[in-house]
Amino acid sequence: MENKFNIVSLIRKKREGQALTKTEIRYLIDAYTADEIPDYQISAFLMASFINGLNAEESAALTESMLHSGIVVDLSHIPGMKVDKHSTGGVGDKLSLILAPIVASAGVPVPMISGRGLGHTGGTLDKLESIPGFTVDVDLNRYKEILEKHHLVLVGQTEEIAPADKRLYALRDVTATVESIPLIAGSIMSKKLAEGIDALVLDVKYGDGAFMKTEEQAAKLAHALVDIGLEFEKETIAYLTNMNQPLGYKIGNWFEVEESIDALKGEGPDDIMELSHLLSGTMIYLGGKATSVEEGIAKSKEQVENGQAYQKWLDIVEEQGGDISFIENPSSYPKASYEFEIKSEVSGYISALDAYEIGMASVELGAGRITKEEEVDPQAGIILKKKVGDKITKGETIFIAYTNKPTTIEAVSTKLYESVSVSETKPEKEFLISKVIDKKGIRDYPL
Amino acid sequence: MENKFNIVSLIRKKREGQALTKTEIRYLIDAYTADEIPDYQISAFLMASFINGLNAEESAALTESMLHSGIVVDLSHIPGMKVDKHSTGGVGDKLSLILAPIVASAGVPVPMISGRGLGHTGGTLDKLESIPGFTVDVDLNRYKEILEKHHLVLVGQTEEIAPADKRLYALRDVTATVESIPLIAGSIMSKKLAEGIDALVLDVKYGDGAFMKTEEQAAKLAHALVDIGLEFEKETIAYLTNMNQPLGYKIGNWFEVEESIDALKGEGPDDIMELSHLLSGTMIYLGGKATSVEEGIAKSKEQVENGQAYQKWLDIVEEQGGDISFIENPSSYPKASYEFEIKSEVSGYISALDAYEIGMASVELGAGRITKEEEVDPQAGIILKKKVGDKITKGETIFIAYTNKPTTIEAVSTKLYESVSVSETKPEKEFLISKVIDKKGIRDYPL
Repeated sequence: MENKFNIVSLIRKKREGQALTKTEIRYLIDAYTADEIPDYQISAFLMASFINGLNAEESAALTESMLHSGIVVDLSHIPGMKVDKHSTGGVGDKLSLILAPIVASAGVPVPMISGRGLGHTGGTLDKLESIPGFTVDVDLNRYKEILEKHHLVLVGQTEEIAPADKRLYALRDVTATVESIPLIAGSIMSKKLAEGIDALVLDVKYGDGAFMKTEEQAAKLAHALVDIGLEFEKETIAYLTNMNQPLGYKIGNWFEVEESIDALKGEGPDDIMELSHLLSGTMIYLGGKATSVEEGIAKSKEQVENGQAYQKWLDIVEEQGGDISFIENPSSYPKASYEFEIKSEVSGYISALDAYEIGMASVELGAGRITKEEEVDPQAGIILKKKVGDKITKGETIFIAYTNKPTTIEAVSTKLYESVSVSETKPEKEFLISKVIDKKGIRDYPL
Repeated sequence: MENKFNIVSLIRKKREGQALTKTEIRYLIDAYTADEIPDYQISAFLMASFINGLNAEESAALTESMLHSGIVVDLSHIPGMKVDKHSTGGVGDKLSLILAPIVASAGVPVPMISGRGLGHTGGTLDKLESIPGFTVDVDLNRYKEILEKHHLVLVGQTEEIAPADKRLYALRDVTATVESIPLIAGSIMSKKLAEGIDALVLDVKYGDGAFMKTEEQAAKLAHALVDIGLEFEKETIAYLTNMNQPLGYKIGNWFEVEESIDALKGEGPDDIMELSHLLSGTMIYLGGKATSVEEGIAKSKEQVENGQAYQKWLDIVEEQGGDISFIENPSSYPKASYEFEIKSEVSGYISALDAYEIGMASVELGAGRITKEEEVDPQAGIILKKKVGDKITKGETIFIAYTNKPTTIEAVSTKLYESVSVSETKPEKEFLISKVIDKKGIRDYPL
């Protein structure tokens, strides 16, 4: 590559809060990926971008450069609008396992490339791999083949997808430049766009158990993500959803598969069913199989009721090598060696369940990882017996925890106990879904 | 060194605009110097510090860490207060060559460690080395021996002085983090404090030909420098001085030595004499050889009139290996091969002489360097025949330029011609010295 730009001038420009041109951003990322710019210059640029921000055009150029640093899957030979969903991550968030089969069973192809759990949140790949035999590592031809056959494929990111993002992310991680909205948005969208999708639904979470602690921050991230999607001419709809308490009643890799099976049979908890149908319905609408989100939601419910969503789940598990006997008979799954309960010492109403602390407790039990190198334990996890708003009597069980690491029991018991707040009066119900953000802007939900 | 701190947390703290503790700053610099922190983390920290600033305590801690990264010269065995001067750099600024012999001849030891020219400004070392035989490379024992014998030593920075500053500066240079007031102040003061001084006079320049373009910026830098000096219990007095036009009439390495000889004989241009006596007088006062700056100025003038300052110059040139025949007979110095004049095409009054452009013209002629590796030509330079406020008639000479690089003549002629502004009426005279900043704060000059 020709050294057309003076790197120091580009860093200085961002330092002074000026916007770089698309060509300048592209040059920086391309040259960095080609090892023509050292880490120490890019880290200075990242810090200047973190503090002074990147505008919509700069974010789009950043996304484009990262997207084109690797392969961009071409799915144009597969008929229909290909639609995926991305969640910014939460505790007990197993929605991918539910909505992917629902949407695929409605005839919309879902090419889903997921990640692993890191920190207090779980990852779809870890959950899928808790099913004995299930493989998420497939090559590009097999990826297309499975998608074409089932309208669904559930795999992990390969080295070929957005390698520049991988490298930039590693640098951001060690230079305190992770939590920047345009950088996060570019990272998410470059990977999603590389999958070969035509449209995208985003579940942007806020609250204790989310990366974005406030609804306002989540709205900023959602706007950044939608703007990039629209810039690439992909229909993109984002929802802001509450992550102050865990989603559903089960946390942990296999436990979340179990709760997903219930949901696919129409027997999941209310919050799980409501959010799954909203996201599935939106995907069905974007995939052209419904004329509105409302019609999409109705279609989603129909796919659950008529058993086609569950059947799609069995088909895809089998196709990707998973042992469906455990899906058909979840109670046959081996249990963790240690099981312990956390009971309430007071009576009243559950007024808060700190999702972050519960997520971290689950990690300590073995269900997640703090550094990328750790192994996860599919059997470890937490079952909630109560949720916010529930009445509780002194001595009643709030959590049952499962682990194969007995040394964690004492600390986790304390952490779980402290994650609970009890009040004398019933707390006001919080919105599960608060806003929708799309090409028309931001609006309250329900519409 | 024990890894007591999480580097990423320290970078994040500065990114969020919080102040680091002294211990945290020291850890960052010490660990960087010990190769325990990679460049890419320090460059992110430098950019965050550039944008969000460092407070007085952080600046002092930074200075202290850089100071103690190398040797700190102990001059306590030499009687008297050791005083030095630092200038932030200008065009035609040869004052070190004048005030050092004046102050030393008044009995105040001057341990002067200088730098080389870079960019549009010249450097004291390059000027000294234009005297055949003069050496600025001496070891620490010889440094002390010369200072003890003559009350004066004129040398270059060694690898042993503030190596952390050298390394940080090199990183700042390639990451667009040079022009930060606290970083500049820490860099200057760590080197000056390492010389073994007891007090310091600062000439902080503002205007076209200075690094600080406005008086306001220069005042900020002066405050930062004085604060650090006081933190280290060294009496520090700074003057803000005008660098909109070059100082004196001569620019270029040997030419500036020539003009210094004139000044030491009491025959220098008015601006040179006024500023030299102010800075010398302040140094004599801080050195305890006068009870006020005014008395110091009178003493400075006396040392020039009685010939002792000039004699001190001859002595130090001889001691450091220089050929004094050229000092005694400057016209015997070999001339550059090419000489050309720039004449006025209009009549009126010189209303501006852009010092930056004239400084860059001098560099192009061979007197300076753009990158550190270049050699300088002692014979190259510019002689001004007019200064701002002078009357000029069409056809009269404004500059005479000297070079050994004939290919530069055309471009330099244009640059010099364009550096001049002529007006019909006589321009108002600008202050040469505008403010003084010391432990009592900032005041107008004259006091």
